[in-house]
Amino acid sequence: MADIVSGPAGRVARVRALMEERGYDAVVVRDEANLRWLTGAEGVFDFTGELPHAAFITGDACFLHTDSRYYNSFVEHMPEGSPWKLDMEAVAIPTWVAERARATRCRVVAVEDTMELAFYTALTRALEDASIAAALPQMHGDLRRMRAVKDEEELALMRRAQAITDAAFQHMLTFIQPGMTEKAIKLELENFMYEHGADGLAFASIVASGPNAANPHAIPSDRVVQKGEFVLMDYGARYRDYNSDMTRTVCLGEPTEEMRAVYDLVQRTHEACAKAIYAGVDGREIHELSCKIIGDAGYGDCYGHGLGHGVGIDIHELPVFGRRSNTVGAGSVITVEPGVYLPGKFGVRLEDYGVVTEHGFEPFTASLHDLQIIEC
Amino acid sequence: MADIVSGPAGRVARVRALMEERGYDAVVVRDEANLRWLTGAEGVFDFTGELPHAAFITGDACFLHTDSRYYNSFVEHMPEGSPWKLDMEAVAIPTWVAERARATRCRVVAVEDTMELAFYTALTRALEDASIAAALPQMHGDLRRMRAVKDEEELALMRRAQAITDAAFQHMLTFIQPGMTEKAIKLELENFMYEHGADGLAFASIVASGPNAANPHAIPSDRVVQKGEFVLMDYGARYRDYNSDMTRTVCLGEPTEEMRAVYDLVQRTHEACAKAIYAGVDGREIHELSCKIIGDAGYGDCYGHGLGHGVGIDIHELPVFGRRSNTVGAGSVITVEPGVYLPGKFGVRLEDYGVVTEHGFEPFTASLHDLQIIEC
Repeated sequence: MADIVSGPAGRVARVRALMEERGYDAVVVRDEANLRWLTGAEGVFDFTGELPHAAFITGDACFLHTDSRYYNSFVEHMPEGSPWKLDMEAVAIPTWVAERARATRCRVVAVEDTMELAFYTALTRALEDASIAAALPQMHGDLRRMRAVKDEEELALMRRAQAITDAAFQHMLTFIQPGMTEKAIKLELENFMYEHGADGLAFASIVASGPNAANPHAIPSDRVVQKGEFVLMDYGARYRDYNSDMTRTVCLGEPTEEMRAVYDLVQRTHEACAKAIYAGVDGREIHELSCKIIGDAGYGDCYGHGLGHGVGIDIHELPVFGRRSNTVGAGSVITVEPGVYLPGKFGVRLEDYGVVTEHGFEPFTASLHDLQIIEC
Repeated sequence: MADIVSGPAGRVARVRALMEERGYDAVVVRDEANLRWLTGAEGVFDFTGELPHAAFITGDACFLHTDSRYYNSFVEHMPEGSPWKLDMEAVAIPTWVAERARATRCRVVAVEDTMELAFYTALTRALEDASIAAALPQMHGDLRRMRAVKDEEELALMRRAQAITDAAFQHMLTFIQPGMTEKAIKLELENFMYEHGADGLAFASIVASGPNAANPHAIPSDRVVQKGEFVLMDYGARYRDYNSDMTRTVCLGEPTEEMRAVYDLVQRTHEACAKAIYAGVDGREIHELSCKIIGDAGYGDCYGHGLGHGVGIDIHELPVFGRRSNTVGAGSVITVEPGVYLPGKFGVRLEDYGVVTEHGFEPFTASLHDLQIIEC
């Protein structure tokens, strides 16, 4: 991490190094997480998938096209000394890109392969209409791979997001009681985060009790939680556009022997995997380790998802601890979240998130791993 | 509206009629709003832009590919008698689509033009790898155009979402006082909606006071609201995956003459445009009417956005009241939201949303248009 210049200027420099290496004259960016990362503009992006903005980056200039709804917000929220030139001319984005390519004489204009088919088609046509002979090579996840390695500014924001998340968990330990609905618990959890500095939620919080927790992507319901049950909470705060992600499974009163055994297995898996992580490891190896520990205990069929994923401006980023090979580099921020799910009975998941360094995995999460039993 | 069969079965039938007309053997769907609309599965989709699911619809079958995280939620939340066959085989989606095309002998497989370039490329390769000679024609907004016309089930959900939104506004009239921050007002507004039945927020709520309200897409800040200022609230509830959208601008104490004049202009514009809407009108005409009224009053430079947009599962849907021509059909649910923004001073926006019928625009919004003055 030490060799990365923190902040948007360093990020644009990394993109320009890629342009130099690949022979791109310019790069067009639409993805909002990529734009947030490159501009440093806080709180302006909606992340709804609508993509109202576009960037055109050359070797010596950064242009951002937006519209009148967002213009002032960008002016107010761009970092001091930002190199970004704002433009809200009322033209369609493909036409704007073609005009920028013409004005800057860029011949090789790289695009994200995540852009919409319709936008790519429109861009091709706009270049043809303007008689510009530009090539449009596709970047395959290059910006996402760059974003996987966080700088100090990003790490600080995510530590803060996790502090809010940990505080909410401590609060919930004093709040949850039998007789409450999953939805009421979710509301309290989210309110607490908002009242303690969250700008938003990392994702729709999961609160799942009893058999509902056997569903990894459970939807909080009107089910009333009862004594003797697990309550699983998977949630996170959004702080200045950066997310946290944590899961804890607590027990209302004493667990059964089976519940205790499964909890211990998940905790043991979590801790063994976290200990095996270091900069440069293959994410698949760590995922396979989690499968082996859970499988050896006889619960292989009860764990279907991946061990973890990168987190940042998006809640799911690179790298991944899953079935496919990919390197977990120094500076990656990643979750570790094994789970065991027994349909019709209960489910347990234990998730921390933190940064990967040469020395290992350093969780941002401060909440304990041991099973928390709520007196009732 | 009368000729539309309500619910997912009627929607799949509309897609099949399109397939028949165009000569498609199958349609592939990735967009989550389209999938929510076609399956009727409530609360399962995340709408984060990640697109973990895919549908393959033929003349006589509906297949949905998902993964182990979501499988049980789909089983639990698909409507009774749903025709959808669920599949969570752990294969990449392009491979799954190619296998479905092979098994069903579909030769013309239509895709959404909103899909990712990388997915389209991967799909082309998967078909080639499987030696399947399928064509992949692109649908240009066909599903979005179908979704623009709401059925009775959808209208009922949006009326309910707006009832929560209206109730929140009534509450805020008794809550807002000078000395509060924009963020604190936003928190109260959102909490009220959650506590009164909202499943989520339609979008990140805007609460903007004084000069901040001159920014159409303002970000709620720590600014303290003061006597004599406007406070603009643009927000909505999400209820069973459907959104509401409303803006009201209130005054803390008495407005100045200029504030009153601008408010009256915005209200007059809103009401004249709402009255001019009927099924079959061109959205551009209504937008131009709003520009004319505001322009004639000398504030043409202070109104840069469109008059309104469709709302449904997505917060921005078709049709649009904007610069481009498009028909506003019967059953469309649309916002009417003119605004006047005076940089450095204040801003006013007044937004209702409702359904377009043969008889005109029928707002779901029940809150009054007249300027509400908060005693302080």
